[in-house]
Amino acid sequence: MEQSLLLLILDLTGTFAFALNGALTAVRAARVDIVGVIALGMITAMGGGIIRDVMLSTSPATFQDWRYLATAVVGALIAFAFGHRLDRLTLPIEVLDAVGLSFFAVTGAMKAVGFGLGPAQAIILGTITAVGGGTIRDALLGRIPSVLSDGLYAVPAFIGALFAVGAWLLGLYGPVTAVIAAATCFLIRVLGVRFNWNAPVPRAWKQRDRRPPES
Amino acid sequence: MEQSLLLLILDLTGTFAFALNGALTAVRAARVDIVGVIALGMITAMGGGIIRDVMLSTSPATFQDWRYLATAVVGALIAFAFGHRLDRLTLPIEVLDAVGLSFFAVTGAMKAVGFGLGPAQAIILGTITAVGGGTIRDALLGRIPSVLSDGLYAVPAFIGALFAVGAWLLGLYGPVTAVIAAATCFLIRVLGVRFNWNAPVPRAWKQRDRRPPES
Amino acid sequence: MEQSLLLLILDLTGTFAFALNGALTAVRAARVDIVGVIALGMITAMGGGIIRDVMLSTSPATFQDWRYLATAVVGALIAFAFGHRLDRLTLPIEVLDAVGLSFFAVTGAMKAVGFGLGPAQAIILGTITAVGGGTIRDALLGRIPSVLSDGLYAVPAFIGALFAVGAWLLGLYGPVTAVIAAATCFLIRVLGVRFNWNAPVPRAWKQRDRRPPES
Repeated sequence: MEQSLLLLILDLTGTFAFALNGALTAVRAARVDIVGVIALGMITAMGGGIIRDVMLSTSPATFQDWRYLATAVVGALIAFAFGHRLDRLTLPIEVLDAVGLSFFAVTGAMKAVGFGLGPAQAIILGTITAVGGGTIRDALLGRIPSVLSDGLYAVPAFIGALFAVGAWLLGLYGPVTAVIAAATCFLIRVLGVRFNWNAPVPRAWKQRDRRPPES
Repeated sequence: MEQSLLLLILDLTGTFAFALNGALTAVRAARVDIVGVIALGMITAMGGGIIRDVMLSTSPATFQDWRYLATAVVGALIAFAFGHRLDRLTLPIEVLDAVGLSFFAVTGAMKAVGFGLGPAQAIILGTITAVGGGTIRDALLGRIPSVLSDGLYAVPAFIGALFAVGAWLLGLYGPVTAVIAAATCFLIRVLGVRFNWNAPVPRAWKQRDRRPPES
Repeated sequence: MEQSLLLLILDLTGTFAFALNGALTAVRAARVDIVGVIALGMITAMGGGIIRDVMLSTSPATFQDWRYLATAVVGALIAFAFGHRLDRLTLPIEVLDAVGLSFFAVTGAMKAVGFGLGPAQAIILGTITAVGGGTIRDALLGRIPSVLSDGLYAVPAFIGALFAVGAWLLGLYGPVTAVIAAATCFLIRVLGVRFNWNAPVPRAWKQRDRRPPES
């Protein structure tokens, strides 16, 4: 009982963080009104889980639970109301976003395992759960999704999902290993932002960077 | 019998209007050929219903009914053939688009209710049914979907879906209340376009507007 | 036995070609890192089949088969590692892409037929299977999907799917007619690229082309 309550609180915290972050991105990046802010907040918070559930051929679970909807709407409305002041809160917002990323990667992967998917598929679906909402948000805002150029975002989610699925394969999955997997994702993400780590880029780009830019 | 025929006619009218409108938008906004015009007309007309049905974990209904496919293709082909002249028809096209918006909002919400979803989810799915096709069209055309910055578009659909679901909760849903809900959506949309109503925008935008633009 | 092995080899060849092509497009078009290259390669290779399976309300088949995942990842990694040299291989890559297009159009249409869809729907789903992955890739890269402006891409897929479904309606579908349908698609695509065929464009565009460009 208490364990599932803990999971619910963590899951709703991630939803809130993603909605806040997604709505703030919308406020800053494009000329959207309150409808756009709420829509993009909800899409960021729930899009990854919806893609996961569609890939699993099951009903999108978070969409049908009013607590997730309400949490996402509240997060988006806070961003709408205080977006002009939240610049000062960059650090807590980044941290909350990393929390959402970590938790969604682990729960997404484990939901896929529960549906009988193989380990590779479960790890990929965990990663998609974590990064999918932000990807749709960026595509709708006409931006190249940051996950495609910022390896720091997908890689920690991938590692968190990998740890969770690995623990499950070893018969060790439980609250403790779930928290370890999520904490690993969180740490890599936060350290990556702090120290500006990057994933490898294609050699074509390195060559272009050496040349003077064309036009 | 006659009632379901009425529903079918209204639904096909909405499909036709959305296909025409979507294909015209494509002709005007980007360098697309006949394939792109037909594809974007069909996506605009059927995309919202497909998202709704995917969220309901059911087979996309309109896609499997040849009458919807044929109506959408005909609407798109008319836009392809006469797009250079349809500028003069802006008013009837706007009106047809508002018809589609109104009808899809109500039928989308009621389909969700029929699948056992809660009121909030049904209202959201009704709104998505109404605005989803145009959103995918805009994303494919590389434009920020107008629904995100033009609250006039999603808000009337939301209110129409709200009225329909409200009538259903009160045990009053039927042809009369469906028409009232759709007509309310239609009126708000048309009056909104006429008088240029807007949804609230984030304060960040208002502040930016007061400052001289940067670069 | 041998026939299904042949189908598998052709299908994996198409997956490999699409992953290579999609990842190369990503390397050239945008500033993506290794995560983005792999993600876009996989999306190009598997996106069309996933859309098809979602429209059929069935589990995405290729996603759940590790052989497809592995083939797509290997194709994307080759593009990542050798993308700066693959410019010289434009011809073989175009040919492989046409192979993928042809095969996916035929197998996509026949899977839809097997799920009981009507001929028109099956032809459309075959076309979507063939062009869907590249469309999502382009949308994520912020480009107007080339399928919307390059009729040469969707039209051969449509004809290949049409031939396969036509053969099936006549009771003639089998390995021979499948190969004929795919070869027809392949030939039209390759000849179209070679001789620069185009699909009709809206008259509005032709008129604009005659005028001097505005800004």
